[in-house]
Amino acid sequence: MKYIVDLNSDLGESFGAYRLGCDREVLKYVTSANIACGWHAGDAMIMDKTVKLALENNVGIGAHPGYPDLMAFGRRDIAITSKEARNYVLYQLGALGTFAAAGGAKIQHMKLHGAFYNTACNKKDLADAIVDAIVEVDKNIIILALSGSYLLHRAKEKGLKAAHEVFADRAYNGDGSLVNRKLPGAMIHDKYLALDRIKRMIYQGKLTAIDGSDISIKADSICVHGDNPEAVAFVKFIKESLIAEGITVASLGSFI
Amino acid sequence: MKYIVDLNSDLGESFGAYRLGCDREVLKYVTSANIACGWHAGDAMIMDKTVKLALENNVGIGAHPGYPDLMAFGRRDIAITSKEARNYVLYQLGALGTFAAAGGAKIQHMKLHGAFYNTACNKKDLADAIVDAIVEVDKNIIILALSGSYLLHRAKEKGLKAAHEVFADRAYNGDGSLVNRKLPGAMIHDKYLALDRIKRMIYQGKLTAIDGSDISIKADSICVHGDNPEAVAFVKFIKESLIAEGITVASLGSFI
Amino acid sequence: MKYIVDLNSDLGESFGAYRLGCDREVLKYVTSANIACGWHAGDAMIMDKTVKLALENNVGIGAHPGYPDLMAFGRRDIAITSKEARNYVLYQLGALGTFAAAGGAKIQHMKLHGAFYNTACNKKDLADAIVDAIVEVDKNIIILALSGSYLLHRAKEKGLKAAHEVFADRAYNGDGSLVNRKLPGAMIHDKYLALDRIKRMIYQGKLTAIDGSDISIKADSICVHGDNPEAVAFVKFIKESLIAEGITVASLGSFI
Amino acid sequence: MKYIVDLNSDLGESFGAYRLGCDREVLKYVTSANIACGWHAGDAMIMDKTVKLALENNVGIGAHPGYPDLMAFGRRDIAITSKEARNYVLYQLGALGTFAAAGGAKIQHMKLHGAFYNTACNKKDLADAIVDAIVEVDKNIIILALSGSYLLHRAKEKGLKAAHEVFADRAYNGDGSLVNRKLPGAMIHDKYLALDRIKRMIYQGKLTAIDGSDISIKADSICVHGDNPEAVAFVKFIKESLIAEGITVASLGSFI
Repeated sequence: MKYIVDLNSDLGESFGAYRLGCDREVLKYVTSANIACGWHAGDAMIMDKTVKLALENNVGIGAHPGYPDLMAFGRRDIAITSKEARNYVLYQLGALGTFAAAGGAKIQHMKLHGAFYNTACNKKDLADAIVDAIVEVDKNIIILALSGSYLLHRAKEKGLKAAHEVFADRAYNGDGSLVNRKLPGAMIHDKYLALDRIKRMIYQGKLTAIDGSDISIKADSICVHGDNPEAVAFVKFIKESLIAEGITVASLGSFI
Repeated sequence: MKYIVDLNSDLGESFGAYRLGCDREVLKYVTSANIACGWHAGDAMIMDKTVKLALENNVGIGAHPGYPDLMAFGRRDIAITSKEARNYVLYQLGALGTFAAAGGAKIQHMKLHGAFYNTACNKKDLADAIVDAIVEVDKNIIILALSGSYLLHRAKEKGLKAAHEVFADRAYNGDGSLVNRKLPGAMIHDKYLALDRIKRMIYQGKLTAIDGSDISIKADSICVHGDNPEAVAFVKFIKESLIAEGITVASLGSFI
Repeated sequence: MKYIVDLNSDLGESFGAYRLGCDREVLKYVTSANIACGWHAGDAMIMDKTVKLALENNVGIGAHPGYPDLMAFGRRDIAITSKEARNYVLYQLGALGTFAAAGGAKIQHMKLHGAFYNTACNKKDLADAIVDAIVEVDKNIIILALSGSYLLHRAKEKGLKAAHEVFADRAYNGDGSLVNRKLPGAMIHDKYLALDRIKRMIYQGKLTAIDGSDISIKADSICVHGDNPEAVAFVKFIKESLIAEGITVASLGSFI
Repeated sequence: MKYIVDLNSDLGESFGAYRLGCDREVLKYVTSANIACGWHAGDAMIMDKTVKLALENNVGIGAHPGYPDLMAFGRRDIAITSKEARNYVLYQLGALGTFAAAGGAKIQHMKLHGAFYNTACNKKDLADAIVDAIVEVDKNIIILALSGSYLLHRAKEKGLKAAHEVFADRAYNGDGSLVNRKLPGAMIHDKYLALDRIKRMIYQGKLTAIDGSDISIKADSICVHGDNPEAVAFVKFIKESLIAEGITVASLGSFI
């Protein structure tokens, strides 16, 4: 049996004079880029630059829509309606889309950001509205979201391609949700442990939850970070180890 | 000989809880809509609604990119670079594009807004960058700009479709530029005079400037307003008078 | 016994080119103005103008801080921290304060806006942080908030002046909260009924809730609106009727 | 004769999740802080934190108002009116003022940012409006601006305190203006040369311009930067060298 997985990272999250993330470095290793669209981070200049860098590295272009909350980097929940969810996704998807088009490319996938991701992955009315929006504009866009989430279930139901995302550096609860970052044990710091967990997800579709129980989990794409040189080194380690293991690392568009 | 002209109006310029313009009414008469893209006015909700209304009325969808200056409605100049001009246009064009796509339509044209229009119609580096941007993403998008402007000249040169815009209610200087709104005689208030001027532009390509001289002017599209019921009545009068005259009033996409 | 009440209205909620509310008209009747501070509505130009109009009409100047959400007029909840609540109030209070100072006046009171009001009136950590912030900068600023709310209770506890706000046009639940606007019977449209309810609140501190029960309610200030000419006429009617009744209508600063 | 000079730096220019500048380090050496007010940079959280840090270090608090252009860090010109200039300064001054008040302090000075500084230092209508605004709200606020500029001349004329700012790391033209950063020789990189130039400005009120001519220049405050560790080391060197020389380094409020 052949195993394949995607490595995705949130990119283009600088803004104006502000710089965030080692985009140039991490783009050497990831296979899919979730590019901020100017609402929680990013701006037209950064989007243009990040799309170009992604294309140069042969990395799949993804839209990364967030809440309209630059002041808090899209990390706090806003009580938006399902219609707002739909239109906010369409707006940001389109804004990124022309930069991809200018580079002769298309949007490969869409992954929500921060609080928008956390809320819409499992809030039915928002998830439904977002899936309908993608169906309306482009059925080829893959939805990348929390593994096992309602959003992915709904995407499949409506004929869209759905990619299950797992986190290399996060502990999971027994119900498949992520352990809150503020709780002890939420983050996996040991790279060998992280790699073992990833391999088990890929090979067996299984993961040990924080309560010791065994949970089933589908891993189409692993979320990694490029915030600093250590994070980039971690990504490099994961990628090289997976390849050495015989696992193919490729962008979502090639296998979902 | 067959005469044909387009009627365009700036629309979708409401924002959030704020309402501006009689969009629903004026869309019954115009043939091309310049829809704000969320920078100087408009937001994702308004864009969605305005695109739908335009499509229901069989009106051509145009992107109406402005400076990032909601606080002053895009009306004051900002010293942007040509690269910023390019990326600001691409961003807004794309954002509107998905709403058109959701309605099964495409962007027919692009007309800049306010100070961005005034500056980029004749500032070479900005105009060049904007033309190149449209060439990169979609050669079918018509550039609608000030009649006789460098931006249109450049668009043609680069193989784009260019539409010359004239103003029904504005006086012109001897060099073809618009008389500053603050100067006496800048606005044409008499609807019969406005109609006569429009007809002469369409039939003869001529117009009497404020200094009494005769200037040559190409009129592919007439800019009209829907700010209030009187403005809408003026649009209705112009459209019905042109049709009664035997002049075809049709959207840019059908004849440029 | 002498009865006295304040009439307050949300004002200065225009933005840039957008106009909202009959500020000039309603300022003839109200005694306290809650002036938007540029986050959910208002901008520096509007604030300057509104403060001047309020001072000309001898109306108490109040800061009206909202969430940073111009796109939805501050009407949807944002999950802010108590520290953010504190700093958002301080920022907006100060911004309005200099316009008052330029007119030789001081901030009389502070009333939160929209979703910020709804949340912070009874969410303890936010309320505490806001009260502490006012204590730090100016103990003379009156807190105007939902009658009976925790925010007012806390303000008194910390030595601040607290003013209980009631709504002339809203039905109340048996627990003293407002009936959700979307429910039947939530709005009081009959001006005579509204007047009767206001009088009973002022004279007896009592109100009939939507479930028929009698509730106790303190009415220091009545919230009225200036959205349109009918709303202004309603304010005029309420004010003139209260005065005819022998009730003093005066700004909060004169009696709290 | 006793010599005294202030060291000022632009601070609090982070925003939301974005970090900019070594504020904590540079605040150990400067004597006056120009704190961003949320328009070109900074936000309510950053302002609160920066004011506290400045007070802990006994550094004078200054407002640093910028254009409403976070997207370009306030660095590009916007064609604002004099009334906008007035109100933009008042708004930002007030917003910062409450954070100072919360710390028991007052605004010591006001220095404009970026393009706003460049334009308003010598554009008469803007300068006049800004001076009038400060006169209206607080005559104790010192105006810190380009040495020899019209803005300072006007401030003195209207009874305000004016502080002349010089740049340690910039070359000057023969007319006293700064050499454009893009031109060769615009930046002084040698710290000993910079120190010599500063000393001559302080002792003799003279400076060698880029064309070799000798110009007169008043140096009340030296602008220094805290962008990175090298910049901070430069500030430390300048301060220690000036003190070793017997020159007093003290905040504007103590001697202007």
